[in-house]
Parts: sequence; structure tokens; C-alpha cells
Amino acid sequence: MTMKRYTDMTKEELAAELAAVRAEYQELAAMPRKLDMSRGKPNPVQLDLSMGLLGQDPAGLIVTRKGTDVRNYGELAGVDECKQLFADLLGLEQKNIIMGGQSSLNLMYDTVVWALLLGVYKGSQPWGKQGQVKFLCPVPGYDRHFAICQEFGIEMINVPMLATGPDMDMVREYVESDPLVKGIWCVPKYSNPTGVTYSDETVRAFAALKPAADDFRIFWDNAYAVHGFEDEDDQLLNIFDACREFSSEDMVYEFTSTSKVTFSGAGLAVLAASEGNIKFLLRQMGVQTIGYDKINQLRHVHFFKNADGLKAHMRKHAALVKPKFDCVLHTLDKEIAPLGIGHWNRPRGGYFVAYEGLPGTATRCVALCKDAGLVLTPAGAPFPYGKDPQDSVIRIAPTFPDLPSLAAAIQLFTVAARLAALEVLGAK
Amino acid sequence: MTMKRYTDMTKEELAAELAAVRAEYQELAAMPRKLDMSRGKPNPVQLDLSMGLLGQDPAGLIVTRKGTDVRNYGELAGVDECKQLFADLLGLEQKNIIMGGQSSLNLMYDTVVWALLLGVYKGSQPWGKQGQVKFLCPVPGYDRHFAICQEFGIEMINVPMLATGPDMDMVREYVESDPLVKGIWCVPKYSNPTGVTYSDETVRAFAALKPAADDFRIFWDNAYAVHGFEDEDDQLLNIFDACREFSSEDMVYEFTSTSKVTFSGAGLAVLAASEGNIKFLLRQMGVQTIGYDKINQLRHVHFFKNADGLKAHMRKHAALVKPKFDCVLHTLDKEIAPLGIGHWNRPRGGYFVAYEGLPGTATRCVALCKDAGLVLTPAGAPFPYGKDPQDSVIRIAPTFPDLPSLAAAIQLFTVAARLAALEVLGAK
Repeated sequence: MTMKRYTDMTKEELAAELAAVRAEYQELAAMPRKLDMSRGKPNPVQLDLSMGLLGQDPAGLIVTRKGTDVRNYGELAGVDECKQLFADLLGLEQKNIIMGGQSSLNLMYDTVVWALLLGVYKGSQPWGKQGQVKFLCPVPGYDRHFAICQEFGIEMINVPMLATGPDMDMVREYVESDPLVKGIWCVPKYSNPTGVTYSDETVRAFAALKPAADDFRIFWDNAYAVHGFEDEDDQLLNIFDACREFSSEDMVYEFTSTSKVTFSGAGLAVLAASEGNIKFLLRQMGVQTIGYDKINQLRHVHFFKNADGLKAHMRKHAALVKPKFDCVLHTLDKEIAPLGIGHWNRPRGGYFVAYEGLPGTATRCVALCKDAGLVLTPAGAPFPYGKDPQDSVIRIAPTFPDLPSLAAAIQLFTVAARLAALEVLGAK
Repeated sequence: MTMKRYTDMTKEELAAELAAVRAEYQELAAMPRKLDMSRGKPNPVQLDLSMGLLGQDPAGLIVTRKGTDVRNYGELAGVDECKQLFADLLGLEQKNIIMGGQSSLNLMYDTVVWALLLGVYKGSQPWGKQGQVKFLCPVPGYDRHFAICQEFGIEMINVPMLATGPDMDMVREYVESDPLVKGIWCVPKYSNPTGVTYSDETVRAFAALKPAADDFRIFWDNAYAVHGFEDEDDQLLNIFDACREFSSEDMVYEFTSTSKVTFSGAGLAVLAASEGNIKFLLRQMGVQTIGYDKINQLRHVHFFKNADGLKAHMRKHAALVKPKFDCVLHTLDKEIAPLGIGHWNRPRGGYFVAYEGLPGTATRCVALCKDAGLVLTPAGAPFPYGKDPQDSVIRIAPTFPDLPSLAAAIQLFTVAARLAALEVLGAK
């Protein structure tokens, strides 16, 4: 393998390299392989860490501390001790918490639906009656956020992600000038897929926003709040603390879940907001349901005991996850870095590496991998409408495969990335 | 206590009776009592019947028969063996079933939201863009159905419940003439609160509807599908079988749940529909969530084994529930029937007795009970907008209290009903 940068190669060198890499790819593609790395899914060994959730003494799963029978109807906002657990985790109080079902995506979706049909505070006009409403979308971002907007015809506006979080000058400009800008999607810690944790300055800039729309809301999807895998965890400023200075607490809906803490298919989702917002949202939620699964809430309380217990549990995840990120980064460093055809983040937590290749290579690279039996997140997925303007970003989700499969997969990926880059460079 | 009909009494007799009943009421009201019978909640002893759901061997809660890890993401429509259980129960096939979370109300709410915002088939116009859409509401009915319509500004039209189900002449007239009539709420078996099971003729009349709106949908809330408590269970015709003759399967969304089978707070909800509708709904649901709690689905499969197991389980509920209905009916027969001031249904299943007193007495009777420490469902609740045109219907939910408390409560109720009737008769 050459260590010369592809961008410095002559036409002849490129042609020779293309032939060599094509052969390498064909050899790898001929190997039997069927691996789906399209989503950020925990590996089964991670799920095994939470088996203590199951098989608990049934006698302990009947009543809450205050004596409510969790098997019956009631407790719309959730069980107190479970709200307390997540309040402690997020630096909030019980009154700021609603326990949802097992999907925070579902809570975000519902919150958008309520805003569209019913408005976001008493007497506010529903978003859906105000014309073409818009959301700001830091990119690259989480495809399922964007899918909600697309589903309901909410116009999406791309905002670049910087090393400190979204470009806050652009955010401020849009939010403070356009009353049809009603929301922004944020993954403020170990952002999906860039791994960025918003700086304190960025969080304060959010808190300080003076929106043109009095029904503007920040969708603060703190999905990876406790998902650091290095010794030192990124510190995200508590946005509600920052908001206090500006009395802007009502502007924020925060979400989190245990989908990557306990079970992706049977965990807990959480919505956190100002006391006023919680009251308003509970009234809406009370038309939708009589309450979410409270037994599962008690299960989680018994399993973790408290927020410290949950954090200790996350160290076990970190021990399993970190070697996988190391493998991806090591392979990219070795195979791609010297060639000058791509760069990537080095996250300290979360679930993704965002690979940015040469413009025009992402779709091709993903297709090459797929033909060789490796399914990646579709190119374009981390952008609104599935359209990456540069066709350059690929989201790598290292957690699901075991380490040997991952190593082989990421090796294949680098070959596909090189091949796609050579094709583009050769075509110049 | 007199056995003379109140309606046959002279003014003097009424006055004497009023004084006697008032004294009786005051004596009962002075007794310490705090009982909430406002909702159809199972008694804790009923919940105890399902403790086998909990404490199952964790090793059995990891993979489905086809090998899917239920702890992880995936299987949006639910676990096959769980879908099969409910398909068998409803006389349908797996492909007709979506497993929801633990609240069928939530599924109904979501289905209405999707229709409002997105339409009910590919290319159909969202209900919300068609002007003032309307629902037919058989009355008395289930307050939470009506609350969904009220929340979203869907106009509700009362349709009388007959002994055979809703007045189908009126239903047909509305549905086949007005394209803005988009739906109807039905509880077809042991109807809430009238206890009526729709006759075969009624079910066939539903199937035969030729709606003016091609996006009309029947919300078939089969909440009490297996909730008979007499030896002989009412037989409800399978509406999808009836629809086959008219190729009208797409017109029906059926719902059921285990809220009153296992745990009200942690059971399973089910949506059943035509294959085409299921596909369309799953695409919408796939934007909202990645899937519902699959571990709880497996728990239910292990606990019941199959539909027969679930039905056998319901016999245990019946043994607990029947004496309570007997107590209510016996007390009403003894205390009210001879007076000619009310009548009621004699359900063979479900959760309610619908008491119909003299016009203008329901609100007063409920208030009298409340003042004496007994909370009933608010008068008016079983009607759209909470308005009972006659102010005569009271929903009695006998299941939650233990038998001695229920007996005392229903005795108080009869005294309050007599007092309210006497006040109205005396005021004439």
C-alpha cells in the first residue's frame, strides 16, 4: 500500500493505485459476509449487562414508596422514585420530569404533533395553523429527527455543526428574525453522528436566544448524557441552569432514554421541561393515555438504586464500547489518514464516528460496502431530506458487531473509501 | 322503606318520603368513607392473578422463536408469537396485527392523529385539511373516546344505543350522506357503559356501509373481547368476516388490550386491521418509534401460552368480578326497582352498569355521593362534551372496591338516587 497522498499523485500513479485497490476490494467482496451496521445498536454483550432488570422478585414490583399499585392505572407522569432518578441524572427536580414509554423518539414525535395540532402553551396557536413552519437542523445530524419534520411537512434548514456545536450565529439569525422558525433539533452531548459535545458558550447562546416566535422550542435530545467511554467524560452545561439567567426555561424540551443504558427494546424514555411546560404537556398526554408502564419504571429503580448506580453501570458499557471505537479510529488512521482523502471525529462517547470523505464519494462508498455484504447507514441519511449536499459524510456505528467482525468490516470500509476516492480523482 | 312507586305518590307522601330519605342519607354521609369508583379499575386481587407475568426466568426473555433479540431495537409490528396470540383471540392472522405499547387508548389516539395530519391511505387527503370533520358517537359511551375528538375539534354527533347496538338507521344515514363524517367510536362487546353486545345484524350493517367519505373509518374498540363473567359469553360477530362479503375490510380499525386481563399499568395493546391498512399504519408508526416493548410481549406469551390460556385466565377474573355485579344489581333491584325512578342494564360482561335515573337527577346524585365520600364517574361523562341531554345516566364501575365496601357504596348510591329523584318529583 502506498503512503503517498492520493491528491498528490500523477494520473499514472492514480491509475495504478485504482487497479490495485480494485483488486483488493474484489478479494474482500468475494468473502462471505453479512453484517448490518446501519444503526447505532448495542451489542448483545452490552444488553447482558442489564439482565438484572429481569427476574426481580415480583413482590418488589407491586407498589411505589408512597404506596401506589403500579400494576393498576394511574400516575400519568410516572413513579416518583423513577422521576427522581432521572432528575438527579439531569440536574433537575421531580417536577421537571415525565416518564414516557420505552422510546424517546416517540416522546419527541408526540411533542411535535401536539405543537402542530394544539400549540405549545395555553392559548398559543397550533404550529399547523401558522403556515409553512420551519426547523433548524444542525448537520450532519440524526436521521430520525429529520424524518419527523419531513413526515409533517416542516421545512428543514441546514445549520453547520462546528467543533463547539451548531453555528450559533446562524441559529441566532434565523431564530430571532423568522417567526416561522419553531424549533431546532439538538443532540448536545456526543452528538449523532459528529460526537461533538456543545461548549458552555454554545449552551449559553441557546439559553440567551430571543426567538421571533414566542412558541419556538429547542428539542434537546440528550440521548448520550451518560455515554462517555473515556476516563474523562465530556461535561455538558445544564441548559436549564443556563436558561435561568434569561428566564428562558420554557424554550427547552429535553429528552433522554435508557435505550443504550439498559434495553433498546424495553428501556425507559424521559421528557424534562420547565414546571409550566410539564403541566401543559401532561394535560395533552392525559388525553392520549392513562399512563406508561410503571412496573418497568420500578424495575429500573431497583436495578440502579440511584443516579450513581446508573453511572457505574455505564462504566461497564464503556469498557465494551471503547475498544470498538479504538479499532475504527486506528484503522482509519492507518489506512486513510496518509492518503488525504478523508477525515473524521475522535469522539469520547456516544455511538458514532462521522467519516467525511472527498465530495461525491459517500454514496459510492456505501454501495461498494453493501455489494460486499456490509450494510452501512445510507449516505445522505444524516441530512434533511436524505440529501448530503457534498455527498461526503458516512455515519459509522461501531457498537453492534463483535470486535473481529468490526475489524474486518472497517478494513473493507477503508478499501471502499479509497476506491471511491480514486474513481472521483481519476475522473477529474 | 316504602314500596310504593314514587311516581304514584301524592305530594304529602313525597314530602314524608323526602324527609325519611334525607335522614337516611345524612346518617350514611356521616360515616367516614373515602372510595373512588370513578374508573373501571381492576381490584388488586384481580391484578394478583397475573403475578406469573413477573419473575419469569430471564433466560426465556431474550429471543423470539425466530431468534430475534427482544432486548434490542427492531420488530416494529411486534413479536410474531405475540401477534399470533392476539390474532387467534380476534379470529385474524398475524399479518393483521400490530402490537402497541401498554395502552390501546394511545393507539386509538395515534390513529386519529395520523388521519388528521397524514390521511388514512396512500394519497388520501388528511382529515385535518378537509374542514369540519365529524365523528358519530353512540351514547352513552366511553368518555376517553370523546375526549380525543374534543381535543382535536372533531365535531361529535350523538347516536342512540339500542339493545342491539347503535341505531344503525341513523348511522347509515349520516355515514352515507355526509363526506365529513370520518369515523365512529364503537365498543362492540359489553359496551362501555351499557353492557350491550352488538347483534350480528348490527355488525353486518356496519360491514355493509357505503360511506360518502372514502376515508371513513370505524374505530372498533373491542376492549372487553374476553371479559364475560357469566357461564355463557356473548358472541360478537367478527367484523372482518362480515366485511369480507362487502370488500370493506379497510373501513375498520380494531383495538384491544390486556389492561383488564393482566395489568392495567403494564399490559399490552393491540391494533388489528386489513393487511393494506397495517402496511400503511406501520410506515407512519415507523417515523414515531423504532418499536414497542418486546420483552413484555414475550412475558405475555410465556404466561398465557396461547389464546385458550388467556381465556382460561379470564375465568378467574370472572369469578372475582361476577359477585360484584350481582351485588350492584341485587341492591338496585331491591332498593330502586319498586320505586319506578330508574332502570339499568344487566350486563353479562365488561366493567360497567349504566344506571338511568329520572331526567335531571344524575348530576345531583353524583354530588350527593361525593359529599358522602364516594366518587363516581362524573355525570355527563359518558356523553360527548360531558353533556348528558337528560342528565339521567350514571356509570357504575363495580370492580375496584372490595365486596363489603362496594355493598356499602351501592347502598349509599341508592339512597342518593332516591333523594335526587324525590327532589325532582317534589319540585314538579
